[in-house]
Amino acid sequence: MKKATLGPMTLLYPKPALLIGANVNGKPNFMTAAWAGIANLAPPMLSVAIRRERYTFQGIKENRTFSVNIPSEDLVTETDYCGLVSGAKSDKVAACGFSVFYAKLKTAPLIEQYPVNLECRLAQKVDFKTHVLCIGQIEEVHVNEDCLTDGKPDVEKIRPLVFTTGVEYAYFRLGEKIASGYQVGKKLFR
Amino acid sequence: MKKATLGPMTLLYPKPALLIGANVNGKPNFMTAAWAGIANLAPPMLSVAIRRERYTFQGIKENRTFSVNIPSEDLVTETDYCGLVSGAKSDKVAACGFSVFYAKLKTAPLIEQYPVNLECRLAQKVDFKTHVLCIGQIEEVHVNEDCLTDGKPDVEKIRPLVFTTGVEYAYFRLGEKIASGYQVGKKLFR
Repeated sequence: MKKATLGPMTLLYPKPALLIGANVNGKPNFMTAAWAGIANLAPPMLSVAIRRERYTFQGIKENRTFSVNIPSEDLVTETDYCGLVSGAKSDKVAACGFSVFYAKLKTAPLIEQYPVNLECRLAQKVDFKTHVLCIGQIEEVHVNEDCLTDGKPDVEKIRPLVFTTGVEYAYFRLGEKIASGYQVGKKLFR
Repeated sequence: MKKATLGPMTLLYPKPALLIGANVNGKPNFMTAAWAGIANLAPPMLSVAIRRERYTFQGIKENRTFSVNIPSEDLVTETDYCGLVSGAKSDKVAACGFSVFYAKLKTAPLIEQYPVNLECRLAQKVDFKTHVLCIGQIEEVHVNEDCLTDGKPDVEKIRPLVFTTGVEYAYFRLGEKIASGYQVGKKLFR
């Protein structure tokens, strides 16, 4: 297969579509983020890259807590909207009709409508040129009861969004299951 | 909606399924990773969490280069296999029939069959309890020519895998496009 060499770019498939939440000046605000990944197993940690001029980032620094809210596919409009406007100018909670609640960390705002909510304590910041990689220790996880199967989160009930770039910025839904992990590869054992 | 509180866990949807490549003792080796995300825009950087006892990690430290290879869905067996065995004991390149090539960084092994290949220079390591977050500066990107549309990577031609956890470890395919990014949210403008 002939390859095209495209130069350095932030290409990764798939990316999540998430709402990162923080209290800024005592009020909940949410921004869209796709640049996130798990960073450690025990204790559970994740990383999310945020531009340092973002309004939400002020709140993360202020309280040293933030939330990660995973949408279902029917929340695509709200999830995209929170990446189009700044909390400095708009009340996104009101515009989206979010019901916000607080739990273990007290200052990490969580969205009732989003089926998965992670409460994170800011463990570390790693400064890069345009973005700050915020490392959060995942202190608590909340999942809609109707998205569980045998008490475990069921991705086919959660129906998360998949964010992609390249030809265009787009949200996809999850397709069918192809194979089980730590299983299908055993076909190559000899 | 009633929420269930599940305790701290590494829950994030969706995760990518990637092969991380490095030369270890002069030979290419690949490990499966799902804990990765973009970390900075300019210069382009990504992070991937790797257990420090991994064979591949030796090579990343040795050469300070690594690759990220994004599979298409027909490579699910090979992608899973590289997470089941260690390069210390098996020649995964031979077992999977990978054609390996090198480009700009000389020591970051790239897999011909994988439609997207990123060459990374190790920019920074962030040490956590069980994992090391390897921050790579993306120095070059290679994409199969038949996965481009108007010269840009086309996710619908790449057909990447989506890795999920919860009820079980599973690989899913990408579903249909739901909406355009930085667009659909404008419905909430008033």
